[in-house]
Amino acid sequence: MSSVRVHNFSVSLDGFGTGDGQGLEAPFGHAGTRLHEWFFPTRSFHVMQGEPGGSTGVDDAFASNWGPGIGAEIMGRNKFGPQRGPWADEQWKGWWGDDPPFHTPVFILTHHLRPTIEMKGGTTFHFIDASPAEALEAAREAAGGLDVRIGGGPSTIRQFLAADLIDHMHIAIVPIVLARGERLWDALQELEERFNVEAVSSPSGVTHLTFTRR
Amino acid sequence: MSSVRVHNFSVSLDGFGTGDGQGLEAPFGHAGTRLHEWFFPTRSFHVMQGEPGGSTGVDDAFASNWGPGIGAEIMGRNKFGPQRGPWADEQWKGWWGDDPPFHTPVFILTHHLRPTIEMKGGTTFHFIDASPAEALEAAREAAGGLDVRIGGGPSTIRQFLAADLIDHMHIAIVPIVLARGERLWDALQELEERFNVEAVSSPSGVTHLTFTRR
Repeated sequence: MSSVRVHNFSVSLDGFGTGDGQGLEAPFGHAGTRLHEWFFPTRSFHVMQGEPGGSTGVDDAFASNWGPGIGAEIMGRNKFGPQRGPWADEQWKGWWGDDPPFHTPVFILTHHLRPTIEMKGGTTFHFIDASPAEALEAAREAAGGLDVRIGGGPSTIRQFLAADLIDHMHIAIVPIVLARGERLWDALQELEERFNVEAVSSPSGVTHLTFTRR
Repeated sequence: MSSVRVHNFSVSLDGFGTGDGQGLEAPFGHAGTRLHEWFFPTRSFHVMQGEPGGSTGVDDAFASNWGPGIGAEIMGRNKFGPQRGPWADEQWKGWWGDDPPFHTPVFILTHHLRPTIEMKGGTTFHFIDASPAEALEAAREAAGGLDVRIGGGPSTIRQFLAADLIDHMHIAIVPIVLARGERLWDALQELEERFNVEAVSSPSGVTHLTFTRR
């Protein structure tokens, strides 16, 4: 059976995976870009942007695992965009432009359905109103035997962890204190008992944690 | 001027420095010993217990900095004991037996004063009802030019951080999720702007963060 994986998900010291006050100009709210500064210099991010160069140290070693072997992503609606409630504007096609970096089917969890959107480069956005297990079944089928990535945000990852559906998880702990936003770890008491956890720090100041299901 | 330092203070991934439900048999509540498992194998802990042996890797490198150069400690009342409110029992002299590991004056922040207690080995427990700045002034005087350690618990460290009184801080991030207890990082938004932060992971799974005042 294919694996369910989380990659490159950043949290602050106080456990926030995104800040407060998401808006069109602020996908991560008041966190700004601070949760992801470790990622931008990596070769993986440069490649994603179609740019040469980039670092190839430990940050990139982790970052580069995001794509290979993944056949579909599941994300929460708040990762897809800042709108809440019924879609006032179906022109919104995500933060990522015409050619999003996913290049696979992407399943967006929402109570407000919309027609599927075909983007350039193989990314297809499907909108589904489903439990984590149901969404995973759909994503697995679409992934054609490859792995499924749970893309975030924090509450989506938390729901998949609570349902014990995640096999591998890479979390980057960023040494900042956000104080508000959405927490990743809430209500996941003794999560560590279900995983082998490894930690490795990077010269960037970030610590990469990997959780591997026992 | 002498420095104000925090050492060997452990927090969970979700930021708890102690668990919920402190009691006589459970100084750290439901966290049990899980926040400090990294510390027990170290040579520093063995020495503290009067035992030979112990590890001398990165965990011990950090643990060993707890004592040298320290002339006084300040701790919160909940680190000293599980009692709340007026002292029903003045027989309580801390968790540490007749010869506590401090070997210096220790200032215990409490609204309920008690006479000073002289212990074996140079530890003296002073009970004071004071602001962080006032307590630090008293501790500095008692420290005779040496540094002052802020011993915890979480709310005591948080108060000293909020008052910007801490120069060096060593925090061990333990890869467990406690879900409840007392958080260290609350209301310390953008703490990182006042410190240079370094991270180093240990084979034990713990990540040692050091904060050095800019």
